[in-house]
Amino acid sequence: MSEFNIPKTMKAMALIAYDQLQLVEVPVPQPGPGEVLCRIKAVAICGSDPKMIHGGYAFANWPPYFPFIMGHEWSGQIVALGDGVEDYAVGDRVAGEAHVGCGKCDNCKNGHYTVCLNYGRDGHDGKIDVGHRHYGFYWQGANAEYNVYKTTGIHRIPDNVSYNVAAMCDCAGVALHGVELAGVTPGGTSVIIGPGAIGLCAMMECKAMGSGRVIVVGRGAKLEKARELGADVCIDFEKEDVVERVLELTDGIGADEVMECSGASDSPTKACQMVRKRGAVAIIATYNNQKVDIPLNTVNFNEIHLVGSKANPNVSGKVLNFFSKGAIDGEKLVTHSFPLAEYEKAIDVFENKKDGSIKVVINP
Amino acid sequence: MSEFNIPKTMKAMALIAYDQLQLVEVPVPQPGPGEVLCRIKAVAICGSDPKMIHGGYAFANWPPYFPFIMGHEWSGQIVALGDGVEDYAVGDRVAGEAHVGCGKCDNCKNGHYTVCLNYGRDGHDGKIDVGHRHYGFYWQGANAEYNVYKTTGIHRIPDNVSYNVAAMCDCAGVALHGVELAGVTPGGTSVIIGPGAIGLCAMMECKAMGSGRVIVVGRGAKLEKARELGADVCIDFEKEDVVERVLELTDGIGADEVMECSGASDSPTKACQMVRKRGAVAIIATYNNQKVDIPLNTVNFNEIHLVGSKANPNVSGKVLNFFSKGAIDGEKLVTHSFPLAEYEKAIDVFENKKDGSIKVVINP
Amino acid sequence: MSEFNIPKTMKAMALIAYDQLQLVEVPVPQPGPGEVLCRIKAVAICGSDPKMIHGGYAFANWPPYFPFIMGHEWSGQIVALGDGVEDYAVGDRVAGEAHVGCGKCDNCKNGHYTVCLNYGRDGHDGKIDVGHRHYGFYWQGANAEYNVYKTTGIHRIPDNVSYNVAAMCDCAGVALHGVELAGVTPGGTSVIIGPGAIGLCAMMECKAMGSGRVIVVGRGAKLEKARELGADVCIDFEKEDVVERVLELTDGIGADEVMECSGASDSPTKACQMVRKRGAVAIIATYNNQKVDIPLNTVNFNEIHLVGSKANPNVSGKVLNFFSKGAIDGEKLVTHSFPLAEYEKAIDVFENKKDGSIKVVINP
Amino acid sequence: MSEFNIPKTMKAMALIAYDQLQLVEVPVPQPGPGEVLCRIKAVAICGSDPKMIHGGYAFANWPPYFPFIMGHEWSGQIVALGDGVEDYAVGDRVAGEAHVGCGKCDNCKNGHYTVCLNYGRDGHDGKIDVGHRHYGFYWQGANAEYNVYKTTGIHRIPDNVSYNVAAMCDCAGVALHGVELAGVTPGGTSVIIGPGAIGLCAMMECKAMGSGRVIVVGRGAKLEKARELGADVCIDFEKEDVVERVLELTDGIGADEVMECSGASDSPTKACQMVRKRGAVAIIATYNNQKVDIPLNTVNFNEIHLVGSKANPNVSGKVLNFFSKGAIDGEKLVTHSFPLAEYEKAIDVFENKKDGSIKVVINP
Repeated sequence: MSEFNIPKTMKAMALIAYDQLQLVEVPVPQPGPGEVLCRIKAVAICGSDPKMIHGGYAFANWPPYFPFIMGHEWSGQIVALGDGVEDYAVGDRVAGEAHVGCGKCDNCKNGHYTVCLNYGRDGHDGKIDVGHRHYGFYWQGANAEYNVYKTTGIHRIPDNVSYNVAAMCDCAGVALHGVELAGVTPGGTSVIIGPGAIGLCAMMECKAMGSGRVIVVGRGAKLEKARELGADVCIDFEKEDVVERVLELTDGIGADEVMECSGASDSPTKACQMVRKRGAVAIIATYNNQKVDIPLNTVNFNEIHLVGSKANPNVSGKVLNFFSKGAIDGEKLVTHSFPLAEYEKAIDVFENKKDGSIKVVINP
Repeated sequence: MSEFNIPKTMKAMALIAYDQLQLVEVPVPQPGPGEVLCRIKAVAICGSDPKMIHGGYAFANWPPYFPFIMGHEWSGQIVALGDGVEDYAVGDRVAGEAHVGCGKCDNCKNGHYTVCLNYGRDGHDGKIDVGHRHYGFYWQGANAEYNVYKTTGIHRIPDNVSYNVAAMCDCAGVALHGVELAGVTPGGTSVIIGPGAIGLCAMMECKAMGSGRVIVVGRGAKLEKARELGADVCIDFEKEDVVERVLELTDGIGADEVMECSGASDSPTKACQMVRKRGAVAIIATYNNQKVDIPLNTVNFNEIHLVGSKANPNVSGKVLNFFSKGAIDGEKLVTHSFPLAEYEKAIDVFENKKDGSIKVVINP
Repeated sequence: MSEFNIPKTMKAMALIAYDQLQLVEVPVPQPGPGEVLCRIKAVAICGSDPKMIHGGYAFANWPPYFPFIMGHEWSGQIVALGDGVEDYAVGDRVAGEAHVGCGKCDNCKNGHYTVCLNYGRDGHDGKIDVGHRHYGFYWQGANAEYNVYKTTGIHRIPDNVSYNVAAMCDCAGVALHGVELAGVTPGGTSVIIGPGAIGLCAMMECKAMGSGRVIVVGRGAKLEKARELGADVCIDFEKEDVVERVLELTDGIGADEVMECSGASDSPTKACQMVRKRGAVAIIATYNNQKVDIPLNTVNFNEIHLVGSKANPNVSGKVLNFFSKGAIDGEKLVTHSFPLAEYEKAIDVFENKKDGSIKVVINP
Repeated sequence: MSEFNIPKTMKAMALIAYDQLQLVEVPVPQPGPGEVLCRIKAVAICGSDPKMIHGGYAFANWPPYFPFIMGHEWSGQIVALGDGVEDYAVGDRVAGEAHVGCGKCDNCKNGHYTVCLNYGRDGHDGKIDVGHRHYGFYWQGANAEYNVYKTTGIHRIPDNVSYNVAAMCDCAGVALHGVELAGVTPGGTSVIIGPGAIGLCAMMECKAMGSGRVIVVGRGAKLEKARELGADVCIDFEKEDVVERVLELTDGIGADEVMECSGASDSPTKACQMVRKRGAVAIIATYNNQKVDIPLNTVNFNEIHLVGSKANPNVSGKVLNFFSKGAIDGEKLVTHSFPLAEYEKAIDVFENKKDGSIKVVINP
């Protein structure tokens, strides 16, 4: 059925216990109805990956079992189609999202599939299959030569976008969803707190979407990267009073919108203090503490819109076009790549910010 | 020029020092260009009034000077017009808002005049007049026989609405603005936390605007009032686990929208925990602590929209129509009325919730 | 598998050629994966039904073949489940929508499944199955004892809502979608043009959602029905200048929103002339002419929002709650009911507005 | 009070009858409260100017009297302040809008001041002054050495923007308001119909705001200008079937949004036919015929949002920032400039598209 020679087994990098990774040989999965089998070409490491390896998501039941194949920011090529797939063809170059909605709950039917009401009801035991998937979190991920995906979670890659860049479709999409929720004021002032990969994508997206001035708050090599990629103003939070500086730059009025991508516990407060009356703050990050202080009287007095932004619904096509047009300079974000066998080394380079690493990609 | 016989001086209830009120005789003010002089017919006491009397708003510079005439929820009759007033006539029955925007800043020009960028730049010394007013807070208020208002801060009262009810235009408007920001899901489930006057108005507004079920969270006489005024479900937070109960009532999904009107420091957290994924929480209250805990991961994971709601821009006409149609049963909210001379007694009845008081009105 | 005794064959009312209906005995269909078999309890006749019978939708390829089983406003009971259905049970009382999206295109993924980009690509020959369905239009409908439905197109009926009323879920939903797109101004003035079943539902919905005054434009028995069901003002377009009257009622300002449900070629122009500056006009109807005149300078000068409203995405749960709460008085809309065998008589009563008919329901 | 030497009289270009212009000497006007006197530095000719000269706006009562000083796209320098002006200083370089709202009606209070409910109630006889102004249409305009403006209608010009470019603040703002109403889909496809000055600005704005591809529909020198200024695709409507081409370029799906800036009577139909299901069409133009054909079934079936866009509320600051950042290349739009005395020649060059003229500017 396929011009591709699909083997029976494949290499995969499995998490066999917290902090224990092992290269294993496992069966190549078979695509079911509405699914495709992909040859994985690139998997980008996300900040959540080392955290999951260390057991930091045990509370969320991620992973739900061992051995588990992680990896959710991926790109690859379709090598086989399941029944009823008529909108994709073998050979298509595609990029993936981590979430696929159940398609049946009120939120999915309204387009909000990353907050699917059936999230997590799909177990790994096959007893319930409501159709939601969270690849690489509770469903088999991309750290392998092959994986199966629902077609609703993949998108064709424009010809001029490489697999390595396309693997960041999920990451840049997480940024874009937050940016769209907050909105970009044409000619206005946008602030990005936390210039990791998501924050850097958000920065480039704000510029591409009409912001007049993007201010990035961070420190060290990542702040330097922001400057290199076009930040209009960089504020080192270790050296300056961030809120004071933003107010000074905006004649005391505040920024039009703030994207909080840092996850630092004091960032949400700063965001509320530096945004203008009637401005928007997008919460794109997660926090180590379940509760975070917010200056709620300021939220009320200044009529701030604080919007939670969950993953990347309905933005992949937009993001891939941004990569294709150069609006997001993806190649500059990918600083390192490794073969699958060197995944642990890749995690080390990424997690410990070695050698100016921003985005580290695995090529299985 | 007027059929009304306007005296030179009038009685006013002045705050002459924190916790010191005095009935004084002061000059009747003169309306300037674009202003009208009103004979005050009713002033409703707001929760902010006793707080201001006790010095609780010293941090905000409210009042900015002594003696100060407070009172911002008012209705009355126009008795004289300033220059250039052509859209109102002497004799018109009108209700007021506390805020009038400067009309010149970016926020006012965009319709967000309660978050005027020039708020507070108007001093009482007449040296700067940017045009914003916050009557009863830093500008002379309605606790008097007469007061002067800009026409942009007043609205004609429908014939079948009494002065006592119309005085709640500001209060019911504060509720409506929050309700509009959060939105009302047709046939859905809305929660009101805090059944004070604002919360009770929000409850009736949610019902009038299509909510399928309004749940009110409170205790004591106010919760009873909510039941009497039509709450579908009343939850006593001293007797039940509020979040658990709301989830149970909504099959585990959560409420569609939550109006936080209580100002209790743990209410915002509960609101975020009881609202559905992709639901909205309106912050209509203020808090004693500048910082309030929020479960920010829940905000992110569930994509909650948390919106600060400041006062009552552009809703007075809507609210007065709601009173007129009976959508808000204003007469049931006004539990007590007193003459101006008994203002201190009125404050006592209101502040100490004596005799089942909800809304206490002064008739100067 | 089911407590229900499901026969091999069933009675169905088939359109065997334009203007030729025949009661036939056909196989009971089998539910596939994600589908359920329903015993049809009620089917409401829609204005599109007689038009389709007469060949008025030949241009749209409705029906795509003969014999064809029409009927798209239905309610019934689940009698068998297809594979993988875990969110419904045999015995559930359910109401249906005419549209089910493909779930895969950009519009479906964004929640806009009635404007599915794959609409119509599903043929009846089984060669392509992209997953979109338009039951009763190009896919087998409800004019039969049984039919198969995807679970994404059905909704549980509240206990206190009858099958006859629930069959109007689709019709009332078409109205609600338009009303939501236009918005309802709290305490404002809404106009409904065309008090057919959709218009009458829109009228009751506007009232339930906070409109201060609903004006209905029509004539004859339907206008009388509007009055009976609570219209605040009824305007007979044969006796009055509609635009002039609406402007007079609104002090020259115009209505806040207009729902155009008539399909008359001059109604859109009137709608634009009677709506306020910055008001909204929802186009809920279709027109006999492909081109309709619009006063486009008025649209520009008055910044009118003219929004096309296609069918009823994401509103069925809301509508069923409105029926349950009495916000829409469904029982008063159902004026006639007939057994399946008398379908032609039912069509006659409906189409020729005999005996004050509004909504005519078939009970197969 | 001013460092500027303000003469008693000034030169002005007056329309003394239809098609009769005359350079006259008239008194320099005096700024009232809230107003400033400006030395006019540049006035751009708008498409409405020759039309008004020829009597094409007699139906709208523009101009309301003769002799009348036209000109509404202007920039200049403040030379004197009226009473109470504290947010501007003598010497400030400013750009103007044609509309100033009354600030008192419901629309103005909501931020929609170009659809002020009191529009046109201000006469030139001084008997009624509700505060709305439409400079150059029914209120004295900028074709003179000086003119008086309300501060709510002016904006400071960034240092690096020339007076000639700043005079297009109104024109580029008209474009931006339409673009904001339609929205720009990140990475999507936008179509501009009519590459006059407004259309060219809309094109550059769409690109600056994240459009992935901007298609311009036009012909001749203006279409060439679009190509030169960065249009991704240019379609000559005289040589190609525009709708077919747009559908072909978008894989049959249609454009995400269409800005109709041409005013040609068949453009709105084409716009509706080339836009995607659930897409938006902004009507930024006006039409010679009061009624224009629209394929209203397409609007309904495809759920198109057709939005009237009136002038340029709340966008001047954004536009001036776009000029400053180079997002709109203003200098390339200004093709000609003339002294005030050569106004008739300027009109001729502009109206008859002589010498590749796009924007023709007068320097009084």
